[in-house]
Amino acid sequence: MIRYILAKMLGVEAILLLLPALVGLFYGELEEAAAFLVPAVLLILVYIIFGRRKPEAPAIYGRDGMLIVASAWILWSLAGALPFTVSGSIPNYVDAFFEMVSGFTTTGSSILRDVEALPQCMLFWRSFSHWIGGMGVLVFVMVLTTLDKKNSMYLMRAEVPGPEKDKLVPKTMSTARILYGMYFGMTVLEVALLVLGGMNIFDSLIHAFGTAGTGGFSNYAASVGHFDSAYIDGVISVFMILFGVNFNLYFFLLIGEAKSVWKNEELKAYLGIIAAATAMITLNLGRHYPNPLTAFRYAIFQVASIITTTGYATTDYNVWPMFSQCILVLLMVVGASASSTGGGIKVSRVLIVFKSIKQEIKRLVHPQSVNIIRINGKKMSTDILNSVYVYLMSYAGIVVLSVLIVSLDNKDFATTFSSVMATLNNIGPGLAEVGPNGSFADFSVLSKLVFCFDMLAGRLEIFPFLMLLTAFSWRKRF
Amino acid sequence: MIRYILAKMLGVEAILLLLPALVGLFYGELEEAAAFLVPAVLLILVYIIFGRRKPEAPAIYGRDGMLIVASAWILWSLAGALPFTVSGSIPNYVDAFFEMVSGFTTTGSSILRDVEALPQCMLFWRSFSHWIGGMGVLVFVMVLTTLDKKNSMYLMRAEVPGPEKDKLVPKTMSTARILYGMYFGMTVLEVALLVLGGMNIFDSLIHAFGTAGTGGFSNYAASVGHFDSAYIDGVISVFMILFGVNFNLYFFLLIGEAKSVWKNEELKAYLGIIAAATAMITLNLGRHYPNPLTAFRYAIFQVASIITTTGYATTDYNVWPMFSQCILVLLMVVGASASSTGGGIKVSRVLIVFKSIKQEIKRLVHPQSVNIIRINGKKMSTDILNSVYVYLMSYAGIVVLSVLIVSLDNKDFATTFSSVMATLNNIGPGLAEVGPNGSFADFSVLSKLVFCFDMLAGRLEIFPFLMLLTAFSWRKRF
Repeated sequence: MIRYILAKMLGVEAILLLLPALVGLFYGELEEAAAFLVPAVLLILVYIIFGRRKPEAPAIYGRDGMLIVASAWILWSLAGALPFTVSGSIPNYVDAFFEMVSGFTTTGSSILRDVEALPQCMLFWRSFSHWIGGMGVLVFVMVLTTLDKKNSMYLMRAEVPGPEKDKLVPKTMSTARILYGMYFGMTVLEVALLVLGGMNIFDSLIHAFGTAGTGGFSNYAASVGHFDSAYIDGVISVFMILFGVNFNLYFFLLIGEAKSVWKNEELKAYLGIIAAATAMITLNLGRHYPNPLTAFRYAIFQVASIITTTGYATTDYNVWPMFSQCILVLLMVVGASASSTGGGIKVSRVLIVFKSIKQEIKRLVHPQSVNIIRINGKKMSTDILNSVYVYLMSYAGIVVLSVLIVSLDNKDFATTFSSVMATLNNIGPGLAEVGPNGSFADFSVLSKLVFCFDMLAGRLEIFPFLMLLTAFSWRKRF
Repeated sequence: MIRYILAKMLGVEAILLLLPALVGLFYGELEEAAAFLVPAVLLILVYIIFGRRKPEAPAIYGRDGMLIVASAWILWSLAGALPFTVSGSIPNYVDAFFEMVSGFTTTGSSILRDVEALPQCMLFWRSFSHWIGGMGVLVFVMVLTTLDKKNSMYLMRAEVPGPEKDKLVPKTMSTARILYGMYFGMTVLEVALLVLGGMNIFDSLIHAFGTAGTGGFSNYAASVGHFDSAYIDGVISVFMILFGVNFNLYFFLLIGEAKSVWKNEELKAYLGIIAAATAMITLNLGRHYPNPLTAFRYAIFQVASIITTTGYATTDYNVWPMFSQCILVLLMVVGASASSTGGGIKVSRVLIVFKSIKQEIKRLVHPQSVNIIRINGKKMSTDILNSVYVYLMSYAGIVVLSVLIVSLDNKDFATTFSSVMATLNNIGPGLAEVGPNGSFADFSVLSKLVFCFDMLAGRLEIFPFLMLLTAFSWRKRF
């Protein structure tokens, strides 16, 4: 059954690869367009061999769901990286794999030193992978094909981020289609607004893909700063913030339950953090910009880009004061809302932790008080609370191990630490050498593979990957 | 009752202040010796006014214990800083307060640019504060005076570090005296061994105080590196490791229960981490030293110094490769064993977290498996587990807030981040500007006060200080 689903997924990717091939034909990049057909044909062969016959025992369980999701993301990235290497755009396959993982996981870190030298169809494929990865590659496949209800639930559980799987999720198919419809609609709206601001259609598509998936790949070295337009900065800022909101809230809005949206504590916290961070950075940037309005424009763009883990930049924040840089690093960790396309540890987890600490202090003062934590008026079960803690601890553990391995490259402390944070939280750029104007090209192969692991673990919230790593020792150890 | 205990504590400090005054007389530093008498007289007056009459309701509770401990540490530091400013050795009182907090909390961070210019009696007082602070100022007072059993228990609970208060603690008075006896004995042994290695008695005392309390103040700018002796490095390395062990284990050894010592999981993990870190750094330092033995000598000293949070140095590890530096930063966070004189989050907490993650992965694979974590064969209660998590979250929260405030000084990332880690974990030196050859002198007053808070919060494991901060709003908010 696992083999069947994976083969099916690769078949879908084969079809997706035709899209950049068409873009290549349109721009007269014939050789590069052909590079997309090679893996496409390969994947269709795999599909024909393994995926045509549906197996007889179609039931999968929680742990299989995790394994399928983890394997699917790796296979998609491995296959998606082929066109880069076949065409010679990114000759080194490890680099191409890094770029593709960065695309699908909506990270936006790049090993390219000169992104503008890439052919149009390659740029399109890179950014399109953000759009697909944003909502989840398996969710995407499920929207297009059919799987029975129970199986879908396990797959979505493993792929949709957040501490508590919302009630929306089990309804799957129809819900997934509605969510994808809204996702598509918002992307189209952003493209339209960007075109209105004078951007050409290709650039608009690239940047709308990057915004919607909170990815951050641009086709310009200066990222969104290339356009140097307050209007475009504004549009992208607003859409980054919108795509960092829990998508279920849009669903509630759609069915007229606006009340439960305004009461949502995560939304309030998310917007509150953005407002506070923007205000503090604007104040801190006082002397860097001619007037407070300009400071605000750069502050809100960078804040929105980092907290939603998009990773676009309109300026090199490495030259900002250390206070502003520290706020950005902090936002990297916080991340966007649960069930959004953004990464990080998610605002809802931060909220739960904050409430636990408050509760503990209360309990110290009044030992008899009852230890209950409520989110949106609902009591948090100790199971969820425990899983949040274990999640955060595993997160810290991965940070520690990654930093240790990457430090073998002997780069400075800010580069070493922020490159791990930028990949694990699916941001894209970090500080110092991996800042908005830098690239991940200079790291060793080992470090690049660690970053790939971090990007995937960050996107799938760690456990599917820890499962995959321990999968081979199941029979022995447990 | 709170007032009574605090007054009593200050009375004891008045007597302690006579010790450095005697040292001053011995070295002919009359003016400086007099500077110790001023606060001593002042404190005795306070004691006479507030502390002579025992109040009628002598019962104190958990939260009062925490408040007393937090207040006592602040008052001791405020009073202990006076001689520095009165004598003009450290003219700025905030700097003197910082130095004293760093002394009592056994941190060892210094705002002095030229430590060797300080008079002998001032150097003695600074290092002696490590020795007193190592076991806890309240425990020290309890050993000397008498308090009823129940009250002592609450005070010790607040002052002795570690996730689980050992069964030893409630026996208090007699236990405290035995523990202090061992502490005293081990210090004397170290002094003797150092004198045998050719160190003079004054230097031996200074460095034995710093080792025993895991503090790290030296009377030389080059720290222990001043002596440049493999024998002295070795003796201090071994004693640093010994003082980072849970003191209750020595008690077990003393009463012949060696078996429970060898079975202790925290001890195994602690020694294992030291061995692994030393091995990795020795290998990593290959090209820095003429032979592996020299590399090993520097590696084990620095590892022992950082994991036990002592903070002595025999070399400037800022010039080491980034991998070795990252391992040291990691050891800063891990810290020493529970119920030792060392700081950090403690090996036992790291062990608990590690086991939780393992358990969670096991539960993902086998959802029916029971969720039990055992330390030393004993089941961990969910209460302790929960308090460990909340502790770590509060720890992370303090790191974040401190880094944000300190970043206003606009120093580089490594300095900003490592200065907070070095003070909160009671290490002493950090990286870059606050490395072994640096000092905390250049920070703003605000940052210095944040460091004082971090040192105290780190030593008392956060909650007494959060309590103190919220104490004034109790009636309103809870």
